[in-house]
Amino acid sequence: MALKLYDLAAADERVRFSPFVWRVRLALAHKGLSADTVPWRFTDKATIAFSGQDRVPVLVDEGAVIVDSWSIACHLDAKYPDRPSLLGPREARAGIVFVRNWCDGVVIPGIGRQIVLDVWTILHERDQEYFRRTREARFGATLEAVAAGADQALPAFRASLEPLRATIRSQPFLGGERPNFADYIVFAAFQWARCSSPRGLLAADDPVAAWRDRSLALFDGLAARAARAHLSNEGSDSPP
Amino acid sequence: MALKLYDLAAADERVRFSPFVWRVRLALAHKGLSADTVPWRFTDKATIAFSGQDRVPVLVDEGAVIVDSWSIACHLDAKYPDRPSLLGPREARAGIVFVRNWCDGVVIPGIGRQIVLDVWTILHERDQEYFRRTREARFGATLEAVAAGADQALPAFRASLEPLRATIRSQPFLGGERPNFADYIVFAAFQWARCSSPRGLLAADDPVAAWRDRSLALFDGLAARAARAHLSNEGSDSPP
Repeated sequence: MALKLYDLAAADERVRFSPFVWRVRLALAHKGLSADTVPWRFTDKATIAFSGQDRVPVLVDEGAVIVDSWSIACHLDAKYPDRPSLLGPREARAGIVFVRNWCDGVVIPGIGRQIVLDVWTILHERDQEYFRRTREARFGATLEAVAAGADQALPAFRASLEPLRATIRSQPFLGGERPNFADYIVFAAFQWARCSSPRGLLAADDPVAAWRDRSLALFDGLAARAARAHLSNEGSDSPP
Repeated sequence: MALKLYDLAAADERVRFSPFVWRVRLALAHKGLSADTVPWRFTDKATIAFSGQDRVPVLVDEGAVIVDSWSIACHLDAKYPDRPSLLGPREARAGIVFVRNWCDGVVIPGIGRQIVLDVWTILHERDQEYFRRTREARFGATLEAVAAGADQALPAFRASLEPLRATIRSQPFLGGERPNFADYIVFAAFQWARCSSPRGLLAADDPVAAWRDRSLALFDGLAARAARAHLSNEGSDSPP
């Protein structure tokens, strides 16, 4: 039985931009697994009620229902131990937990501040009220006010990436010579921006940009080939 | 032949406060090794010229000379593989590199801003001019101006610890159930403050404070028993 992955979609259902689902899409590719994705929107709570909660990613694997990208990575390593490991041996997992917490506390809010209004514009109209209400509560400001402060926030965001930058100066991936789930966690945040916003986040000569390019090229360009909302609006969904 | 470790000392040579040497002192304890420490001061460049550079830690291990706390940890794991591992298997090392870069880029500058003037006050007088000149260049301000801004900088410093806080909410140490070199790297920065400054850095109910207490207690209280400058000035070098 094929795996099934519920995946957040924009108004254009080809555009899949959730940073948390991208963690899983890259994890599946790392394991050499494929899944049928089911386009899902923020307000489709009933569709995934069977999972016992109301957010994606939700993975269905031979009757097992797993939610939360971290739990899904643990499940994939446990169920498919003969395929390349995402989290490595037990001793490696603690370090990846730290990277995840850094990403969730620093990178996700930092990128969110840059792109949140762009994300709102690409949503299906039935999602827009929900998204605006929940995100404005999170930021304590209107989406327009957050977007108006994005340019000013950009230098601090770039500076906040220094731990990533310093690490990929000495090794090609957070995982070392080869990527592991730590890379997918952080890269997925950049993929979220790439799919949903035309904004450039990184200086061209930033080593982080080179790492992002290496990650885009993984798995025959899985992420590079993904549909981008603001390009498809112009009649193309290919990357430049 | 006993190991020998060159260790930064205050005017009171019992006070050893270098965050980078504390990484090594805890690493040695983790491996069940002991070293004779040699008190060293910033301006004793000639004393360690044999190491090919001018900073501590410098470890001498049966004729091998190893500098830099990370290289020392790698050396200890390679030379003493039958003792508890600091860095774990190859796959774990990449995650610890990230924690180190986060600590060096976020925690060390954040604590430095809180304590730099206190550190200056405890130095041997022959170190004070060197320290003031190099640190004022680094901060772009006088030590007094940095210290005057410390209270205002404290909330942002505490917020910057969120990746650590989130991680040790779900596991007792950065290394997981037990500490590894990632813990020693970050804890050593707090030990730097503990030995050199009376300033409190953490709210009492911060989970980071509980992790710091667990770390202080390791190895029969190795770090808890260390001499503290501002207490020894009052006639005691015992922790409260």
